[in-house]
Amino acid sequence: MSNQVHDFNEYRTRMNEKILAADNKIIKRIFNLDTNAYAEGALDVKTKELLGLVASAVLRCDDCVRYHLEKAYENGVSREEMMETMGIATLVGGTIVVPHLRRAYEFWEELEKLNH
Amino acid sequence: MSNQVHDFNEYRTRMNEKILAADNKIIKRIFNLDTNAYAEGALDVKTKELLGLVASAVLRCDDCVRYHLEKAYENGVSREEMMETMGIATLVGGTIVVPHLRRAYEFWEELEKLNH
Amino acid sequence: MSNQVHDFNEYRTRMNEKILAADNKIIKRIFNLDTNAYAEGALDVKTKELLGLVASAVLRCDDCVRYHLEKAYENGVSREEMMETMGIATLVGGTIVVPHLRRAYEFWEELEKLNH
Amino acid sequence: MSNQVHDFNEYRTRMNEKILAADNKIIKRIFNLDTNAYAEGALDVKTKELLGLVASAVLRCDDCVRYHLEKAYENGVSREEMMETMGIATLVGGTIVVPHLRRAYEFWEELEKLNH
Amino acid sequence: MSNQVHDFNEYRTRMNEKILAADNKIIKRIFNLDTNAYAEGALDVKTKELLGLVASAVLRCDDCVRYHLEKAYENGVSREEMMETMGIATLVGGTIVVPHLRRAYEFWEELEKLNH
Amino acid sequence: MSNQVHDFNEYRTRMNEKILAADNKIIKRIFNLDTNAYAEGALDVKTKELLGLVASAVLRCDDCVRYHLEKAYENGVSREEMMETMGIATLVGGTIVVPHLRRAYEFWEELEKLNH
Repeated sequence: MSNQVHDFNEYRTRMNEKILAADNKIIKRIFNLDTNAYAEGALDVKTKELLGLVASAVLRCDDCVRYHLEKAYENGVSREEMMETMGIATLVGGTIVVPHLRRAYEFWEELEKLNH
Repeated sequence: MSNQVHDFNEYRTRMNEKILAADNKIIKRIFNLDTNAYAEGALDVKTKELLGLVASAVLRCDDCVRYHLEKAYENGVSREEMMETMGIATLVGGTIVVPHLRRAYEFWEELEKLNH
Repeated sequence: MSNQVHDFNEYRTRMNEKILAADNKIIKRIFNLDTNAYAEGALDVKTKELLGLVASAVLRCDDCVRYHLEKAYENGVSREEMMETMGIATLVGGTIVVPHLRRAYEFWEELEKLNH
Repeated sequence: MSNQVHDFNEYRTRMNEKILAADNKIIKRIFNLDTNAYAEGALDVKTKELLGLVASAVLRCDDCVRYHLEKAYENGVSREEMMETMGIATLVGGTIVVPHLRRAYEFWEELEKLNH
Repeated sequence: MSNQVHDFNEYRTRMNEKILAADNKIIKRIFNLDTNAYAEGALDVKTKELLGLVASAVLRCDDCVRYHLEKAYENGVSREEMMETMGIATLVGGTIVVPHLRRAYEFWEELEKLNH
Repeated sequence: MSNQVHDFNEYRTRMNEKILAADNKIIKRIFNLDTNAYAEGALDVKTKELLGLVASAVLRCDDCVRYHLEKAYENGVSREEMMETMGIATLVGGTIVVPHLRRAYEFWEELEKLNH
C-alpha cells in the first residue's frame, strides 16, 4: 500500500476538519470556493485540474501539487499530459520548480501503483 | 485602432530582436523553448495557452498574461473560458492577483475591439 | 487636487464593475470576501487594514498597498504607525520591498494633501 | 510534552548561534534588527506580532509563522484573533496558503497544550 | 541625454530622502545595510554587484535591477558578463523573468549611450 | 559519513533519471541548459555558482541552495565568501530567507566534515 498518498490525504482531511470547526467565516468560504472552482463550467473538470496543477507547481506548493495530481489522475489525465503540464510549469517558473517536479513525479508513481 | 495591443507587440518584438542579437546561448535556447512548449502535443494548443495564462497570472507577470491572452484569443478561447481560468488564478494566487485581473480584462476588451 | 489617488480609484472602480458584470461566480465571491475580511471582528478595522497593508507590501502589490493605505488613512492610522508597518514589511520581505515603499510613501503624501 | 514546539526552538537556537559565530556583519545586523522591529513603538507588541505573522504566512515561511505564533501566543493573542489574521493571509495570498494554515493550526494546538 | 537613467535616479534619490527624514529606525538601518553589503570583503565589488543583479532579476524587481545594472556598469562589468548573469536569472527564475530582461537590456543600452 | 549530503544526492540522481526517462522534450532541454549555464564563459565557474546560490536562496529553494553549495564548495568557495553571498541573499530577500540560511549553514558544515 502507498503510504505517501494515504498520509497526505489523512493529514489533509484531519487538519481541514479542525480548521473548519474553528469557524472562521472567511476561511470557511475560501474552502468552499476551492471545491466549486474546479467543477465543470465553460471548461471541463480535467482542464481545470491541469490549470490547478500548473498554478500550484509554479507557486511551488507541494501539497497543492499533490492534491491536483490526485484529482487529475482520477479524471483520466495521462502521464504524458501531466508531464506536458509540468514542462510548462518548469519553463514559466524556472529551474526552482525542478525539486517540486521530482516530488510530483514520485507522488504520481505512487498514484499509479495504488491503482494497479 | 487599439494602441495597447499594438504597443505591447511592438516593444516585445523590438527588444526580443535586440536580446537575440546579443547572442547569449542560454537566453536564445530559453526563447526557443518558449516557442516549442505551447505547440500541440498530448495536450492541444488551446489548453496549453490556458496553462500559460494561469501560470502567468498567479506569478503576476502582466506582459506574460498579455502574451497568453492574445494567443488564447487567436486559438478560439471564449471570454467565459478566459474568466474561468482567471478565476482559478485569483483563487489559487489570492486577491493580489486582482490588479492583474483588471489589466487582463482591459487587454481582452482591446483584443475583442481589434477583431470587430 | 491629487490625481494619483483619484486616478487609482477611478480605474479600480471602473474595471471592478466590468469584471463583476462578466458574472464569473468564483471571482464575484472573492470580491465579496475581500469586503468582509476587513470588517470588525475579534480584531478591529484599523488592525485589519494594517494586516492587509503589510501582506500587500511583502507581496509587492502596489495597487493593493494603495488600497490599504487609503483605508488605513480613513481609519485613523498615523504616519508613524504606517511607517512601522512598512518597516516590518521591508525587514521580512527584504530590500526588494524598498521600491514599493517609495511609491507607498508618495501615495501617503497625496492622501495627506487631499485631506488638508 | 510537546516535541514540535521544543524541536523548533532547539534547532533555531542552535543554528542561530553557529551563524552568529561565523561573524558576517550583514547577517548579524539583520538578526539584530529582527529583534528590534517587533518592540513596542507607535504600535504595540501584539499588533506587531500579528503583522509578522500575516507577512510570514503570505510569504509561506513555515518557520517564520511558527516563530510569530509563539510570540503572539505569549503576548495574549486569542485563537480567534490568530484565525482572523490567518484568514486575511489566506484571502490575500490565495489557497496556496492553506497547507501553511494547516501546519500553523497544528503548531497553535501544541502551544495551547504546553500551557495547560 | 538619457532620460530613463536620469529619471530613475532622480525619483529614487528624492523619495529616499523623504523616507529617511520620516526617521523610522528599522528602515534607516536597512538603507544603511544596503550600502554596506556591496562593499569589498572576501568578494570584490564587481562580484557583489552581479549577485545583487541576479537576486533582483529572479525576484523581478525592475528598480532593483536598474540600480545594480548602473553599479555593475560603473564597476566595469561587460555586456557579455551582464548577459551571462541575466541568463542564469532567466533559467533559475523562468520565462516570467523575460519581460524584466527586456527592460534591463533597454536600461543597459541607455547606460552605454550616456557614457559615449 | 555525512548522511544529509549523501541522501540529497541519491534522491536527486534517482528522480532525475526517472524524469529524463519519461522523455518530455521541454523538461529534458531545461535539464540540459541547467548543466550548460554554469560552465565557464565571460564569467568563471566559481562566480556562476555564487550567482546560482544567491538566486536559489532569495527564491527560497532549499534543494537548489544545497546543489549550488556543493558545487561552490568543490570550486574552492571559502566559508567567508559563502556567507557574504548568503548575507546579500538575506538582505535582498528579507528575514524569510533566514530559515533557509540555517539549513544552508548546516549543509555547508556537512560538506566540510565530508572533506576532512
